[in-house]
Amino acid sequence: MTTTTVIRNVRPMGGPAADVLLDGATISAVVPAGQAAADLPTLVDGKGQLLVPAMVEAHTHFDKTLWATPWRPNSAGPTRNHRISNEQAVLKDFKVPMAERAAPLIEQCIARGSLYFRSHVDAQTAWGIGHVQEMLALRERYKHVIDMQLVSFPQGGLLISPGALELMERSLELGVDVVGGIDPAGIDNDPIRHLEAVFGLAVKFGRGVDIHLHDLGELGRWEIDRIADMTAAHGLEGRVMLSHAYSLGAFPPADLHAMADRLAALRISVMTCAPGYVTVPPVAMLRSRGVNVCSGSDGIRDAWSPMGNGDMLERARLIALRFGWSKDADLAAAFDVVSHGGARALGLAGYGVEAGCQANLVLLDAENMAAAVVECGPRRTVISRGRVVARDGVYTGT
Amino acid sequence: MTTTTVIRNVRPMGGPAADVLLDGATISAVVPAGQAAADLPTLVDGKGQLLVPAMVEAHTHFDKTLWATPWRPNSAGPTRNHRISNEQAVLKDFKVPMAERAAPLIEQCIARGSLYFRSHVDAQTAWGIGHVQEMLALRERYKHVIDMQLVSFPQGGLLISPGALELMERSLELGVDVVGGIDPAGIDNDPIRHLEAVFGLAVKFGRGVDIHLHDLGELGRWEIDRIADMTAAHGLEGRVMLSHAYSLGAFPPADLHAMADRLAALRISVMTCAPGYVTVPPVAMLRSRGVNVCSGSDGIRDAWSPMGNGDMLERARLIALRFGWSKDADLAAAFDVVSHGGARALGLAGYGVEAGCQANLVLLDAENMAAAVVECGPRRTVISRGRVVARDGVYTGT
Repeated sequence: MTTTTVIRNVRPMGGPAADVLLDGATISAVVPAGQAAADLPTLVDGKGQLLVPAMVEAHTHFDKTLWATPWRPNSAGPTRNHRISNEQAVLKDFKVPMAERAAPLIEQCIARGSLYFRSHVDAQTAWGIGHVQEMLALRERYKHVIDMQLVSFPQGGLLISPGALELMERSLELGVDVVGGIDPAGIDNDPIRHLEAVFGLAVKFGRGVDIHLHDLGELGRWEIDRIADMTAAHGLEGRVMLSHAYSLGAFPPADLHAMADRLAALRISVMTCAPGYVTVPPVAMLRSRGVNVCSGSDGIRDAWSPMGNGDMLERARLIALRFGWSKDADLAAAFDVVSHGGARALGLAGYGVEAGCQANLVLLDAENMAAAVVECGPRRTVISRGRVVARDGVYTGT
Repeated sequence: MTTTTVIRNVRPMGGPAADVLLDGATISAVVPAGQAAADLPTLVDGKGQLLVPAMVEAHTHFDKTLWATPWRPNSAGPTRNHRISNEQAVLKDFKVPMAERAAPLIEQCIARGSLYFRSHVDAQTAWGIGHVQEMLALRERYKHVIDMQLVSFPQGGLLISPGALELMERSLELGVDVVGGIDPAGIDNDPIRHLEAVFGLAVKFGRGVDIHLHDLGELGRWEIDRIADMTAAHGLEGRVMLSHAYSLGAFPPADLHAMADRLAALRISVMTCAPGYVTVPPVAMLRSRGVNVCSGSDGIRDAWSPMGNGDMLERARLIALRFGWSKDADLAAAFDVVSHGGARALGLAGYGVEAGCQANLVLLDAENMAAAVVECGPRRTVISRGRVVARDGVYTGT
């Protein structure tokens, strides 16, 4: 084992001051501060800053962002279907190419400390395979800095939109990682056939599943049970994600415990952005029953909403605010959701701040993990695979 | 009318570029950009930045903050009463004097663009008149920069806490502006006598009323009607505030309309911090029926919660997120809540960015009002009474 560089005097996860020795892109050792040999090259002098793993943006839609373009007043009608058709109209012939919107947003996300991503790509007959090809090209362009999983996602429906299933197949052939679904009842109006199609593709291509589930109350609750059925039936334990799953926030407590145990047993992850205007999965309770919870920004300044900035530390704060958390352990849990929770959901190897992990790290000014979440202060340094890629909120590249 | 200084090339509320002429502490005219005489002294060259009125922090608790002290893990038990007793224990002999905590927080609030405040001061027998005296001294210290209303507020109950009523009387004699109350049912367990005491003080001293109402559901709903009764009975129309009023978020729509109309008729303002973990007043609906809504940070890093930073532009964003707002008009309404809504609630004269208003202003980098709320970017310049008091988030004083 060689040591190529050292991150000096940082506090991993708020613990005692340490030097972090890197062997190229990997953490080779974490030793008490001052113990790393003085003649080793210094990558960063942390000056006692907090060291955390780079965060995980587990649910976004880079292909749809209007980032880095002039402000566009939201023009969507009031329902989900209005938003879907409005988005198609806005994006169909948008003047600024996707790469010129998504690339600066990806760099913003990196500068805010995220280096792992799952982005849903709309398999939309309105634009055919175009979004997929452009996102694959962007993934290639940033592959030296970030890990990005792509989900093929039938925003406009899978059964009701002729050609959508074929587009998804083609996406998976081209290298998209995960099979997406959306509101099997609420969009396609045929939940079992929708899920059969989604899980059918997953089995055919050997991929995981990630389903947008906005359907509310009893309807959404019933669908979660059906998704669990199919996860078990197809042996996809550990490879399925429920995105949003608003209905989990409307379960009677006793039923919720049983459902949580079922999700935990099937290792189905739950992704929540913790929105304020709808019921949301009860994060602490789910975690206490062993359900893995992760988070994401969802759309970032797009035709659905101008909100969002890709900052997953702010997302941790929003999670804490959503549940009124004030204890240090809860605030640290909020960070766990946007870090290790995401890593578990995405099946990432070598994630963390220990020896053997990837040197994908963020340095922050904060007294401890709880303060980091409360304050959302500047990301002083972002390190990707052993190299500094952003300082003080500005992407520098490698 | 003389012109002493000019703020050049700003866009008031996102409108056309303008020069803003000041006569001392007052806006004397707003003219198209470039029309102010070149030989007039320039206060700020706005370079096309957005110009908004300084924001209104309409509900905070400066006397209780732990700001600018080392991180203190939250030690409160689970209920409201636990939090009250925990706070008494934490603050009773806190080593850092209040002024050393509250003053830097006030400066932080100013640097984030707020210049008008309503701070509730705990009339607590545990510390007697001390908090009131210290807050009166702080108000005096910052009176050249900010306007601060103080509310005498019986956190630990008014009837169940012997001496609290006398402390409130003494506070009002010393110059506290407003009579506070808290959960007439939930804390004192004697709602009518509690309200009689509060409104009795208001009538005796000729002051307004501001009641913390956390009581939920039907209980809180019933209390709002009783507060309305007493407002009408004592002729206090336009001088009563409902703070929090969570129960307004749990009304059946038809009843809510009738209640909103009653609040509007009595000009009772509603203050919401838009928390995520409880029902909250439906801001858009209340405003549509003519109810004035304002906002505040509530406690900022105190023994109740470490959350908060005193940033009212971020509060506007939190309001928008709480309700899932995405339209420009709604986002502008969120700003209206933290600005004109607060000014109306606090009865401020000369508030705004027009000729005749106080020159209490903030310059922001943002394309328009909606973008300002979404992005919460840096406050480039904060102007108090015609003088720059903060730049780029740093308080400079006058």
